[in-house]
Amino acid sequence: MSPIKAIQQFVSLSKEEIAEIASLFEKKEIVKGGRFLEYGKICDKVGYIESGSLIFVKHDSEGNQIATDFLFDGDWVSYYNSLLLEIPSDVDIICNEDCVIHVLTKSKLELVYESFPKMERLGRMLAEHAFIDLAKRSSNLQKLSGKERYLDLMQRKSIVLEKIPQYYIASYLGIQPQSLSRIRKKILG
Amino acid sequence: MSPIKAIQQFVSLSKEEIAEIASLFEKKEIVKGGRFLEYGKICDKVGYIESGSLIFVKHDSEGNQIATDFLFDGDWVSYYNSLLLEIPSDVDIICNEDCVIHVLTKSKLELVYESFPKMERLGRMLAEHAFIDLAKRSSNLQKLSGKERYLDLMQRKSIVLEKIPQYYIASYLGIQPQSLSRIRKKILG
Repeated sequence: MSPIKAIQQFVSLSKEEIAEIASLFEKKEIVKGGRFLEYGKICDKVGYIESGSLIFVKHDSEGNQIATDFLFDGDWVSYYNSLLLEIPSDVDIICNEDCVIHVLTKSKLELVYESFPKMERLGRMLAEHAFIDLAKRSSNLQKLSGKERYLDLMQRKSIVLEKIPQYYIASYLGIQPQSLSRIRKKILG
Repeated sequence: MSPIKAIQQFVSLSKEEIAEIASLFEKKEIVKGGRFLEYGKICDKVGYIESGSLIFVKHDSEGNQIATDFLFDGDWVSYYNSLLLEIPSDVDIICNEDCVIHVLTKSKLELVYESFPKMERLGRMLAEHAFIDLAKRSSNLQKLSGKERYLDLMQRKSIVLEKIPQYYIASYLGIQPQSLSRIRKKILG
């Protein structure tokens, strides 16, 4: 799907509006292992994932990589913490496979809000989603066991199992890769 | 300030729009100790605080009260976690003094978005603020010392010191009330 099709799911646009907004996106192809956003840079863009999958990766003090989010085709990608506060990103956003992403810079996004006030709905939806994801992750890490977090992730994003390496899934759940194998075996068998 | 004045700071409205939107708010007076939102209820409203101050309070497993947020006149109040996900609130939102709050129910808020698409900006701003607050609090609790969290809170909301009981401030910072006294003495002296 194109970003315009995705926007049209919750904002109705005229032909002229579609043409103008579409012209502000830039289509980027990023190969597997490439970065949509680099650690230490200020995030100044949002993107619509046409194809591929991405992993948000933090580095702990011992140099381990910890996955904090997974995104797939049809998702919007940005790092809200850095985008809104204009502070350097504490994550890398890494392409887990070859990706096609339609990128809208922050300045063009603001232009969209100014020119087409109804497009504020896109901003509201993105911010609300970012909030919900953050709130769920904080709460799950505090309250659920490793197995419960696994089941919750599977329910929300079963595609994760197909696409994302085990190492990243385990780190996202806050458990050891061996524990993840045990949990999976128990559930399957 | 009225909620309409607050909205006009970032959305320009005609006289007719002002009249229509203003009519959807309901002015509520809640006495000190009363609740804007009760634990266990689903939050179905946002409010604009004309006067007074409010404390978000969680109860831990040992029955202790832990403050998770403070709001003051001029702030918007809602519990996004419960509002967006439609799950029961895990906090009480308690009036720390007599409050005047202009309340907009969720159904009327949705009506506002439908009727006046530019009002989506209000929704975007509220969601972005909720996100920033949550992200900062999560990050501060993980990374900063008690003293650093105190300084950060003072910098962001120095009014907290004037208005909020010490017990709640200490619980918000994740420290003992005695530690808060020590930190304050050190900083002052």
